[in-house]
Amino acid sequence: MGQPPQEVSPLSLNRLSLYLRCLRQLQDQGVTRISSQELARQFHLSAALIRKDLAQFGEFGIRGIGYQVEPLIETINVVLGLDREHRIAVVGMGRLGSALASYLGFNEGAFRIVAAFDSDRRKVGKKVGHLEIHHIEELTEVVRETQAEIALLTSPARVAQGIYEELTAAGIRAVLNFAPTQLAVEPDVPTKSVDVRIHLEELAFFLR
Amino acid sequence: MGQPPQEVSPLSLNRLSLYLRCLRQLQDQGVTRISSQELARQFHLSAALIRKDLAQFGEFGIRGIGYQVEPLIETINVVLGLDREHRIAVVGMGRLGSALASYLGFNEGAFRIVAAFDSDRRKVGKKVGHLEIHHIEELTEVVRETQAEIALLTSPARVAQGIYEELTAAGIRAVLNFAPTQLAVEPDVPTKSVDVRIHLEELAFFLR
Repeated sequence: MGQPPQEVSPLSLNRLSLYLRCLRQLQDQGVTRISSQELARQFHLSAALIRKDLAQFGEFGIRGIGYQVEPLIETINVVLGLDREHRIAVVGMGRLGSALASYLGFNEGAFRIVAAFDSDRRKVGKKVGHLEIHHIEELTEVVRETQAEIALLTSPARVAQGIYEELTAAGIRAVLNFAPTQLAVEPDVPTKSVDVRIHLEELAFFLR
Repeated sequence: MGQPPQEVSPLSLNRLSLYLRCLRQLQDQGVTRISSQELARQFHLSAALIRKDLAQFGEFGIRGIGYQVEPLIETINVVLGLDREHRIAVVGMGRLGSALASYLGFNEGAFRIVAAFDSDRRKVGKKVGHLEIHHIEELTEVVRETQAEIALLTSPARVAQGIYEELTAAGIRAVLNFAPTQLAVEPDVPTKSVDVRIHLEELAFFLR
């Protein structure tokens, strides 16, 4: 990953995302206050770990009363950098890329999908969700116009490295890679991989 | 996760999956032997870590000669439990579930998608890839008939826990969860989650 996390370890970073999701569910249900014990019970988490993780950001919990849901959501949003919009480009309009580009779940809060690309000219100009598909050659121009910051890379493995390099050259600042290949990553471009096959192989190991 | 890994840590388990993918690529290219240095260079890995990880399974590397690609693939396959077929059921025929069910990349080697389910009767009987979509009520019967072992769970968050419990009751032995929710997992059913939003939030943190 790029710059080292300030104050927050990668593991507690992931847990913050989880807490945020749980707190949002509670907010939707009209809950305004919750104890760490109750939060832990409802979402199958550890109360001690919740208290430890959240204590890093000041005193949110009041002993015997618990956390105020809304202020805590706002603080975690600031800590995670979710207090502003991040624009996303999806590259590769195969089944997975199309599914990601049309998944409205990303178009709320801090994330918005703003562009879709493919290298197949037959797909260019067609719609996926509310977006028009652009040719990959238009990358630099469309990234500049849409101010896309994050790319979801769903291209075939054999072309993924080349496209990754085009993305970073075009100004994309972070990449979530779905191509089943090991990328040589730019040190200053945070890059993570989602690899379903590797998860399956891990499960297979536990079924031996 | 279920039973504790024998001899292999979760991290080196993931790295074994990566090595396996790299070795398969080399095999496809006709390479029969490779040094740890060359393997590291080609796939952006650490040569020292490769040697350490692979030394756990006996002496594969010959000093000055390197690893024999094919025997090493076979050994890693046995270590990971990939020397037999694992049958997969996909639950939820939304965009993501349909994309996963039709992704032929899973239908090679140790994994085979054998069943697809949805709770929407309008989808039942239709085809996704080569599979017929079954109603979720037929779960127990179809899991028994197809001998599906692993489920890919892509249902909406609000119903995921209930379906998870139906899956384990029906005999599914491991679950890869794509529903954006925190599941209460069965201790003896290895369960992993793939959560794109949490990855995005992690990237957003590094873009602060």
